[in-house]
Amino acid sequence: MAITIRTATPADVPQILAFIRALAAYEREPDAVLATEADLLRDGFGPHPFYECLIAEQAGHPAGFALYFFDYSTWLGRPGLYLEDIFVGLEFRGLGIGKALLQRVAAIAIEKNCPRLKWEVLDWNAPAVDFYRAMGAEFQDEWRNVRVSGEALQRLAGIPAAAPQTTEAAQ
Amino acid sequence: MAITIRTATPADVPQILAFIRALAAYEREPDAVLATEADLLRDGFGPHPFYECLIAEQAGHPAGFALYFFDYSTWLGRPGLYLEDIFVGLEFRGLGIGKALLQRVAAIAIEKNCPRLKWEVLDWNAPAVDFYRAMGAEFQDEWRNVRVSGEALQRLAGIPAAAPQTTEAAQ
Repeated sequence: MAITIRTATPADVPQILAFIRALAAYEREPDAVLATEADLLRDGFGPHPFYECLIAEQAGHPAGFALYFFDYSTWLGRPGLYLEDIFVGLEFRGLGIGKALLQRVAAIAIEKNCPRLKWEVLDWNAPAVDFYRAMGAEFQDEWRNVRVSGEALQRLAGIPAAAPQTTEAAQ
Repeated sequence: MAITIRTATPADVPQILAFIRALAAYEREPDAVLATEADLLRDGFGPHPFYECLIAEQAGHPAGFALYFFDYSTWLGRPGLYLEDIFVGLEFRGLGIGKALLQRVAAIAIEKNCPRLKWEVLDWNAPAVDFYRAMGAEFQDEWRNVRVSGEALQRLAGIPAAAPQTTEAAQ
């Protein structure tokens, strides 16, 4: 049956959040998703969208999604496309839906004059690694990913941590 | 002498390109920079900027830069800050300029309500790795970086490669 790939609309937000949660569970971080429907609506469909999203449907049922944004290559002097999430529901695997989503994202990159498409994959996710390699992707394993978040970000920004409770105050 | 960190203006574009080239040379890719001043002007200072940039000055001399854009965290439901480039000129090392740039970027992340700051570092760049660790950064080494570009991106998008020259046509 036919696979359809279409641009997400505000009505898809509950389904997008369900896909984000399913992907986080697959990535062994089921409790990591703090995003709400209101967040996704504001940031994807407001006056200044921070991401764009595609929905894959199999015979009318939502089967997967791809969520991307524009990054920037200072070497190429052009925005690139960064694929933050790509996911196909477990019951829809093996039908070519992941390939169709990735191909559509690549076509959008070409259409927007983006010279490259980047994303990340977990090193233990061998089926995904093999799939991406078969799609012509290169692995840039000399680059390590770094992040600062939470209290470490506040410390780096020079914002003092909340004062620790003294014994006296705790009594 | 005082270190000043300020937002880049269109007049800084030649200096930004010089920093991008110096960073590429430091990263052992001196020929990788195809960006032009026109590219950087259009993409950073037009009606829809794809990046923002800070310039560090030491006693009035341009000493370093940091270039970042907004990415998106589907787990946190918020834009994050992605630091594409940070660089301090070799003659300005050891003065705390890199730290001052990174602190300012972190402060901008907090100000923009971005819950995390991400970037990449080359695995052989031990001084940078040590510096980032000292700044409170985490290394997410379970994530591999993937990219598709050039002809592989066109193939993935379903655009046929240019027909190879036949022997006849080449004569």
